[in-house]
Amino acid sequence: MNQFDVPLFEALRKHNEKKPISLHVPGHKNGLLLQSTPFFQEILDIDVTELTNLDDLHSPEGAILEAEQLLADAYKAERSFFLVNGSTVGNLAMMMATLKKGDIAFIQRNCHKSVLNGIELTGAQPVLLGPEQHEDCGVAGGVSLDTIRKAYTLYPECKAIILTYPNYYGITFNLKEIIQFAHEKHIPVLIDEAHGAHFIGGEYFPPSAVELGADVVVQSAHKTLPAMTMGSFLHVNSEYVSIESVNHYLRILQSSSPSYPIMASLDLARSYIGTFEKEDEHFLKETIEAFKKELKTLDFVKVLEFPIHQGDPLKLTLQSRCDKTGFELQRIFEEKGIYTEMADPNNVLLVLPLLKKNMLFPFDEIMEQLRAINLTAIQEDRKNVYFYKEKISTLHREHSNQEEYVPIANAENSICADTIIPYPPGVPLLLKGEMITKEDVKGLTHLLNSGARFQGGQQLTQGMLKIFSQKEI
Amino acid sequence: MNQFDVPLFEALRKHNEKKPISLHVPGHKNGLLLQSTPFFQEILDIDVTELTNLDDLHSPEGAILEAEQLLADAYKAERSFFLVNGSTVGNLAMMMATLKKGDIAFIQRNCHKSVLNGIELTGAQPVLLGPEQHEDCGVAGGVSLDTIRKAYTLYPECKAIILTYPNYYGITFNLKEIIQFAHEKHIPVLIDEAHGAHFIGGEYFPPSAVELGADVVVQSAHKTLPAMTMGSFLHVNSEYVSIESVNHYLRILQSSSPSYPIMASLDLARSYIGTFEKEDEHFLKETIEAFKKELKTLDFVKVLEFPIHQGDPLKLTLQSRCDKTGFELQRIFEEKGIYTEMADPNNVLLVLPLLKKNMLFPFDEIMEQLRAINLTAIQEDRKNVYFYKEKISTLHREHSNQEEYVPIANAENSICADTIIPYPPGVPLLLKGEMITKEDVKGLTHLLNSGARFQGGQQLTQGMLKIFSQKEI
Ligand SMILES: Cc1ncc(COP(=O)(O)O)c(C=O)c1O
Ligand SMILES: Cc1ncc(COP(=O)(O)O)c(C=O)c1O
Repeated sequence: MNQFDVPLFEALRKHNEKKPISLHVPGHKNGLLLQSTPFFQEILDIDVTELTNLDDLHSPEGAILEAEQLLADAYKAERSFFLVNGSTVGNLAMMMATLKKGDIAFIQRNCHKSVLNGIELTGAQPVLLGPEQHEDCGVAGGVSLDTIRKAYTLYPECKAIILTYPNYYGITFNLKEIIQFAHEKHIPVLIDEAHGAHFIGGEYFPPSAVELGADVVVQSAHKTLPAMTMGSFLHVNSEYVSIESVNHYLRILQSSSPSYPIMASLDLARSYIGTFEKEDEHFLKETIEAFKKELKTLDFVKVLEFPIHQGDPLKLTLQSRCDKTGFELQRIFEEKGIYTEMADPNNVLLVLPLLKKNMLFPFDEIMEQLRAINLTAIQEDRKNVYFYKEKISTLHREHSNQEEYVPIANAENSICADTIIPYPPGVPLLLKGEMITKEDVKGLTHLLNSGARFQGGQQLTQGMLKIFSQKEI
Repeated sequence: MNQFDVPLFEALRKHNEKKPISLHVPGHKNGLLLQSTPFFQEILDIDVTELTNLDDLHSPEGAILEAEQLLADAYKAERSFFLVNGSTVGNLAMMMATLKKGDIAFIQRNCHKSVLNGIELTGAQPVLLGPEQHEDCGVAGGVSLDTIRKAYTLYPECKAIILTYPNYYGITFNLKEIIQFAHEKHIPVLIDEAHGAHFIGGEYFPPSAVELGADVVVQSAHKTLPAMTMGSFLHVNSEYVSIESVNHYLRILQSSSPSYPIMASLDLARSYIGTFEKEDEHFLKETIEAFKKELKTLDFVKVLEFPIHQGDPLKLTLQSRCDKTGFELQRIFEEKGIYTEMADPNNVLLVLPLLKKNMLFPFDEIMEQLRAINLTAIQEDRKNVYFYKEKISTLHREHSNQEEYVPIANAENSICADTIIPYPPGVPLLLKGEMITKEDVKGLTHLLNSGARFQGGQQLTQGMLKIFSQKEI
């Protein structure tokens, strides 16, 4: 077996070649019941169940085991799993396997919601670490070793550090030194690498968290590799986290009827990155650099560049340099048939394709459409109105159940009863259960005065904040 | 909007018609990166993300909300949800929304493993109810009102009753009177109707648990309706279970990138059953009855019939009447290109297609193949070697951590440290944490003497059972 092999995909192809008659689930019977429906004809032929030779995701012994071994080989993990419920289920399972009720866990303030959900399900006690701030993009990045050290001094009983690497915008950070520090203290490091499944593709990319020695790494193969949506990977390489325990929670949290099309696409996606050659890397680099050069000729946007070696080249942020917001630019692009990943008030984020040598992508058409956009450039950079805290704080679970609104200025030293997310950068300034500090009051006032927008905080614009009443509990 | 409409499928079709350029996830870029891969070409065009007009499963406001409303209309539910992680996630979410740590929950001894997993996640205290036994099929069916009454007398503080309706073999039971009893006592009834999504199709089918007044009903739309695998429905109609709480747990447990192909197939599946007419029902009934008549001409199998009005006509059990086991028959069928749902030592289970009028299915080819099988019939019925308990019991969580093997005869009044599943009928005789009774010892001995097979119970064949040591705890 080598990385060109796709044992699960092949097993499905062989099954289909027999022109089997289905007297089993699924109910579409190899597509018969949806026979004139566009899009679904071909795929339903392999949307099958645990038939002879098709193995079983929940206790693999055949084609799925082989496919998962090839995955582990490609990423150099001790054990790798196919996930069919996204990186969401990977984040939940790795946390449930590592943390029990009351355990201290370090998490980033700007983590994905599935990490906060993992905190809810495990009942662990989160310590929120403030991320570093990228001036240029105006977004939150990773956590510094310095912050981790400070948190460790406060909470040496920490049972796990859970970090996002890279962030949504492709920004990475010095994870290696953090892992070294954590392992010296015998603390496992769990990495949400949802956006970095392609990092093993060569030096054009940042190093993968798996290579850097993380204990568990979760990756959305559907985000940057060619897997179907919901297809993800989970890798374990750990002295601290048990493979059996991760497996136990994956079996609990994933359907007992996992989708074969998604699993087959994971096999194909692994082969795609497992056979990504030097010449593919060069071709991709040249293609992306040429595209960026073209983009730089547009005067209504600025192409943001990452700090050296701290970014994923597949993520490209265009900052507005005209009187349109990022959101408005995104709509204008869509009218031209160009669909982007995300917008914030200042930026539009593109996810570029992980092309192999000689693959064609319509970059020329994109440029033609963008050049036809008629917008007047403003020559100064966007002011990024944002504020977030590098502070280290925890959530208070013991508080009154009664809530009340108080003027922001009076909220200091109360426990916040709402989650307040300034947008951008979409990083919670205050979480429900967090103690409100003097700094928070200052920051929130500053943001409101600058006209920032918020998720949560119904009465913020009237200057009121929801807190838990401070009576006896 | 009516049941012929498929708003989510249409939204995807319209998006695709624009021939959009993808600078967003997923990484395959509308299929470009897998461009010569069989099976995947068409579907990847609609394997997209939360783009403009494509709504968001986790807070639906557009096409997905409309599709879910049509679903609620079809089943007459207050609120219905699309699930992309199977009935597994539905069972977990309905239990997490209803039960908290230590709550008493009545569950069937022969429930799906996801219900036991729901017990683990919630920390609820299960009371196991022994199912009724179907002599003919030799499998476990539903729970009787009598058993529920007895359990209620023992545990009147019960917080939820969780039942499987129908079972894997299509057997139903008098759920209506159980629901009435439960609601008189203000106890919600949560139904795992994984195998009954098509029951609203007319009188040829048993009544749906939704019609019978169950509080929450979970259905695998992929099992009998034409949805893609992992596509399920969840319906809420309850005074006791909060829709918001179910929604909360679904948001936690399902990927933040739900699959559009699966969601679109749920929309199509709902429309399929929502427009299932009287004439479809008649056609289907005639087709199935004709097929059964043909099957009855085979002398090496017996077609099992359900007790009147207690079964799903799409499930068809063939019992071996030759010297082959069910497993062997299944393999023989497979060699003829006919793939069935399941086998046990005596039976082969078929899942028939939910055909609409004038749809063709290769029944003739199936019969031709089956007639060519040359097996000598044995004229007596199979002896069903099985034993399971109608007893009501609970799980003991407080016991020593030390395990030991003891002779079965000495195991009475100890706590079992293994899960012992005689196969058939695949219903646990003993669960880990269950007290071993005199009856269990008798039953287990009887089964071993009759040559039954087991899942779990490593040293059973040497007459030894694993228990938790009875020292001070
Ligand atoms: C950083 C991060 N982690 C985890 C996830 C969850 O992954 P999935 O959507 O594959 O379940 C996402 C998805 O957006 C993400 O951006
Ligand atoms: C009775 C029952 N409940 C629940 C499930 C779980 O459903 P799914 O496989 O759709 O997650 C199954 C699947 O086999 C089942 O048979």
